[in-house]
Amino acid sequence: MVHQSISELINHYKQGYSLEQGFYKRSDVYETEIKNIFLKHWILAGHVSQINAVGDYFLFEFDKESIIVARTQGGEVKAHLNVCRHRGSRVCLEKKGNAKRFTCPYHAWSYGLDGALIAARMMDDSFDKSVNGLHQAHVELVGGLIFVSLAENPLSLKGMRSNLDVTFEGFGFDKMRLAKQKRYEINANWKLAVENYQECYHCTPSHLEYAKIHALSLSPQKFEEHRKNYLARTTGNVRTDAANYYFDLAKSGEEGYQYDRHPLLPNMKSGGLGGKPVSVLLGNLTSYEGASSEFMLGPVTFFLIYDDHMVGYRFLPLSVDKCVCDIFWFVNDEAEEGKDYDLGDLTWLWDITIQADEVIITNNQLGVNSHFYQSGKLSQMEDFQQHFLDWYVASLKHPSRSGF
Amino acid sequence: MVHQSISELINHYKQGYSLEQGFYKRSDVYETEIKNIFLKHWILAGHVSQINAVGDYFLFEFDKESIIVARTQGGEVKAHLNVCRHRGSRVCLEKKGNAKRFTCPYHAWSYGLDGALIAARMMDDSFDKSVNGLHQAHVELVGGLIFVSLAENPLSLKGMRSNLDVTFEGFGFDKMRLAKQKRYEINANWKLAVENYQECYHCTPSHLEYAKIHALSLSPQKFEEHRKNYLARTTGNVRTDAANYYFDLAKSGEEGYQYDRHPLLPNMKSGGLGGKPVSVLLGNLTSYEGASSEFMLGPVTFFLIYDDHMVGYRFLPLSVDKCVCDIFWFVNDEAEEGKDYDLGDLTWLWDITIQADEVIITNNQLGVNSHFYQSGKLSQMEDFQQHFLDWYVASLKHPSRSGF
Amino acid sequence: MVHQSISELINHYKQGYSLEQGFYKRSDVYETEIKNIFLKHWILAGHVSQINAVGDYFLFEFDKESIIVARTQGGEVKAHLNVCRHRGSRVCLEKKGNAKRFTCPYHAWSYGLDGALIAARMMDDSFDKSVNGLHQAHVELVGGLIFVSLAENPLSLKGMRSNLDVTFEGFGFDKMRLAKQKRYEINANWKLAVENYQECYHCTPSHLEYAKIHALSLSPQKFEEHRKNYLARTTGNVRTDAANYYFDLAKSGEEGYQYDRHPLLPNMKSGGLGGKPVSVLLGNLTSYEGASSEFMLGPVTFFLIYDDHMVGYRFLPLSVDKCVCDIFWFVNDEAEEGKDYDLGDLTWLWDITIQADEVIITNNQLGVNSHFYQSGKLSQMEDFQQHFLDWYVASLKHPSRSGF
Repeated sequence: MVHQSISELINHYKQGYSLEQGFYKRSDVYETEIKNIFLKHWILAGHVSQINAVGDYFLFEFDKESIIVARTQGGEVKAHLNVCRHRGSRVCLEKKGNAKRFTCPYHAWSYGLDGALIAARMMDDSFDKSVNGLHQAHVELVGGLIFVSLAENPLSLKGMRSNLDVTFEGFGFDKMRLAKQKRYEINANWKLAVENYQECYHCTPSHLEYAKIHALSLSPQKFEEHRKNYLARTTGNVRTDAANYYFDLAKSGEEGYQYDRHPLLPNMKSGGLGGKPVSVLLGNLTSYEGASSEFMLGPVTFFLIYDDHMVGYRFLPLSVDKCVCDIFWFVNDEAEEGKDYDLGDLTWLWDITIQADEVIITNNQLGVNSHFYQSGKLSQMEDFQQHFLDWYVASLKHPSRSGF
Repeated sequence: MVHQSISELINHYKQGYSLEQGFYKRSDVYETEIKNIFLKHWILAGHVSQINAVGDYFLFEFDKESIIVARTQGGEVKAHLNVCRHRGSRVCLEKKGNAKRFTCPYHAWSYGLDGALIAARMMDDSFDKSVNGLHQAHVELVGGLIFVSLAENPLSLKGMRSNLDVTFEGFGFDKMRLAKQKRYEINANWKLAVENYQECYHCTPSHLEYAKIHALSLSPQKFEEHRKNYLARTTGNVRTDAANYYFDLAKSGEEGYQYDRHPLLPNMKSGGLGGKPVSVLLGNLTSYEGASSEFMLGPVTFFLIYDDHMVGYRFLPLSVDKCVCDIFWFVNDEAEEGKDYDLGDLTWLWDITIQADEVIITNNQLGVNSHFYQSGKLSQMEDFQQHFLDWYVASLKHPSRSGF
Repeated sequence: MVHQSISELINHYKQGYSLEQGFYKRSDVYETEIKNIFLKHWILAGHVSQINAVGDYFLFEFDKESIIVARTQGGEVKAHLNVCRHRGSRVCLEKKGNAKRFTCPYHAWSYGLDGALIAARMMDDSFDKSVNGLHQAHVELVGGLIFVSLAENPLSLKGMRSNLDVTFEGFGFDKMRLAKQKRYEINANWKLAVENYQECYHCTPSHLEYAKIHALSLSPQKFEEHRKNYLARTTGNVRTDAANYYFDLAKSGEEGYQYDRHPLLPNMKSGGLGGKPVSVLLGNLTSYEGASSEFMLGPVTFFLIYDDHMVGYRFLPLSVDKCVCDIFWFVNDEAEEGKDYDLGDLTWLWDITIQADEVIITNNQLGVNSHFYQSGKLSQMEDFQQHFLDWYVASLKHPSRSGF
């Protein structure tokens, strides 16, 4: 069996069509993706409310990587590679906790909360502790959201911040709390999961509950009507115009992002059963606007901002044919569980939606594996996915280009 | 580690000896087999009695493939690749059932029972539904047996039909019913299972129950005596002379097949306990002949025709080191369960025989995996297996030759 | 992804540092290790007390290999590859037992206890039984210990014997009995397990129970003090000077080995709880010496000889990322269970120690898998491991050199 090179595979890529099988199955493609995408772009690691106190930490893990996200003595948020500089053991074995320092369970090398090597027994005089701290990952806070980049020189978030800071303020990004986090394992390549998230062509056939609330499940023509009506009646509490710098549109050296506001269907207020509210309003909002906002930062982190809660979606590869979708539910940090919101009501819509997607995406992979699978033509409702695919293919091609 | 090329492996092949280890372990060999053998030759998919009514269907699956075998509106039997032409999802998720159409669970593209694309929502005007039906597999009926070929230009069955049609009529091939089907998973390469089926050198040590009924378990010399006795006393209700066009003997462009009639041991009538009958006589048979017939069509489908029932054996690969043996038990379609036959009695002999073979074949694979495994000399009772190996090696060599 | 060649990987090897990731993950490296190390060097298979009677046998298995170790009619210990010379089936399926001969369960080829082919049904006249016996592995007894080599021309044990025979006599190597054997599966490359065994840098942080008994867990300086004290007070019942011909130090054509005697901490007598005795004294010993001896033979077999029992450690690969540690507990063959020793007391220390190591080694592998793992500097307490690594890398390089 002679395999095509990755370049040949890329050259066969046909805009407007689904990807060839090799992109979803080949381990060399997967390894290139890890290097060019996952070890380079910004990914949501978690939220500051998970590590309120000095010494609090949690692990952020995907593929073969484990990263310790910790609150230092100085109150900063830092991210350290969970790989001992001696012989490579995992240093921290607990998924979350509170520590004074991180002591490797193998030979007791001991690292501070800031990752510096504090103690290494019986090493000879030539050994320099100061260059043997845990490898550092870059950290940026977007409101209370902790983003991590494993790149040597990470993409800039400046453009994104100057464009969206006011929007974040409007939604109270630094006044939220993580109410619930849940992991969904999917037996499929990670791209099939991300593609699934990025198009609403499947919403009507597959997600009845979502389709009853969101205008996005309608045809582009009908959606446009709802959008016009929404814009006409909105009081403009939050930004309504789109910011599209994501994927193929990002400026050189900057991380891609996108913001957009979409109408809900008439009389729908939020993502509760029947479109009902599920918590207290976020940020500066004073009333339900009948819309929700989409915010994306980096290639695998997405947010859906309802007026009274925010849902985060993160897609991470475990191997070439296995990935996870992690869902984060955020509420106004003044909301009290049991009084202002019920966890069941809050998580209902996206829990059932992702469970349905698990089945869909797994069956997509099974069919893609067939010798008879061919790239198929995409519909007009898959235009956003189309941007993702264009960007994705370019990412494989130009590993050294820093800004997509 | 430098691996030999497949050609080098083939060049080392030594007639009269078992295959080298690489044929049983290498993934490149396996991929070549899938293309040159399993996507080319005719394989038993099932039986018309499984899809009596319009809209009835079942899935036929192996390796990475899933094929929908369905009864169309016009009453025909068709086979469709279970891969949506949009983005490749499995279209049909149930193993069997009845459907008006096949609607993809992802984006609701909808296909008729004949595989044609009926509906695809919101595709732009340039999209041509008529060329986006489900990929078709070729179907041929042999009596009520449904054979499927995934080749573009399948091998011809004409020679086989003109040679054997009278024989099929004698056994009532179009007057049978599938009484029971059972799957046996084997942790071994598919060839070790097919080789096992094709030789009776192991019958005496491994299959006492079979050896008590079938003369084939005896030495070639003793078998020949039984055969002469049988031929002398037979009333000649069914064909007794062999038709050997299988494997290396098939005519160019035609599928290989074989037919032969073998004596049972004295006083044995059928495959029941003690050689007893298990159902009513098949086809035109008016009495028990003390023999059984072997019929093979394509490389992985075999039938053992007793006078009162027929057993089908189908070997399919799941991966390079895992395969299945599917057993089908057929009876005269006028036989009534409970009255004319008992399912336990009908399936007894081959259920225990294949269960013993599962263990044997798995232990064969374990030994073949050793660095110390070498090709071993075959016995005279493995001559049929020898034909299979000759044909198999040639199949790897000449992928484009159409007729083996 | 272009991989380095193994030679390039070797050329990057830096003495005094842990190995690069590729050595622990690459399947081509693993295959080279099997050939250059495991199919060449001497490995402990078991003990004569496991096969006292004629026809007694047990299986010794690793990677894809299975070896039958049996007591022949003449009372000899022989080792046969468990691979039928006909079509490769496993011949012997039971892990241990007593047999008159080994008859292949597939086609009933039958082999004597000495491995010779006795019977093969219906083979034609050209078939020569005398050259179709089971492949033989080499066997050497060291006291009652059964060592096996799968090499064509095994490394010599003569130097080792002339150097250590008196030592073996002192400890009564031919007057022991296997009291207990236990297998520990570890999800890591076998070298991480062997490295773990070979350094006591981790003893204090990880093995409190061991560290309370053995001076080896102390710093080299403190250990040296204990050693001097021990040498000053010892009555010299057993050899105290080291024999270092292991790894990089072995003579050409000879198997590597090592012997050394180490003090226990004050008042410690053996490996029981609190350093207490656990059985009757071994060999010629007349009193507890306050020390234990280390004996290693070949790259993966180690012994720790306490004055009243001996513990054997054997590390075997199952695949590139999975290995086992087999522990053998030996006692004076005159000791009676229940009276002279208690199995729980005997096995306590090393059972808990290896269980702790299982966790340590698995977490070492997880960290080594990271893209951010780098070779780390070794401490002075890892000098023995350093010798192992030097030898290991040389073993990959010079496959044909016979003596390491």
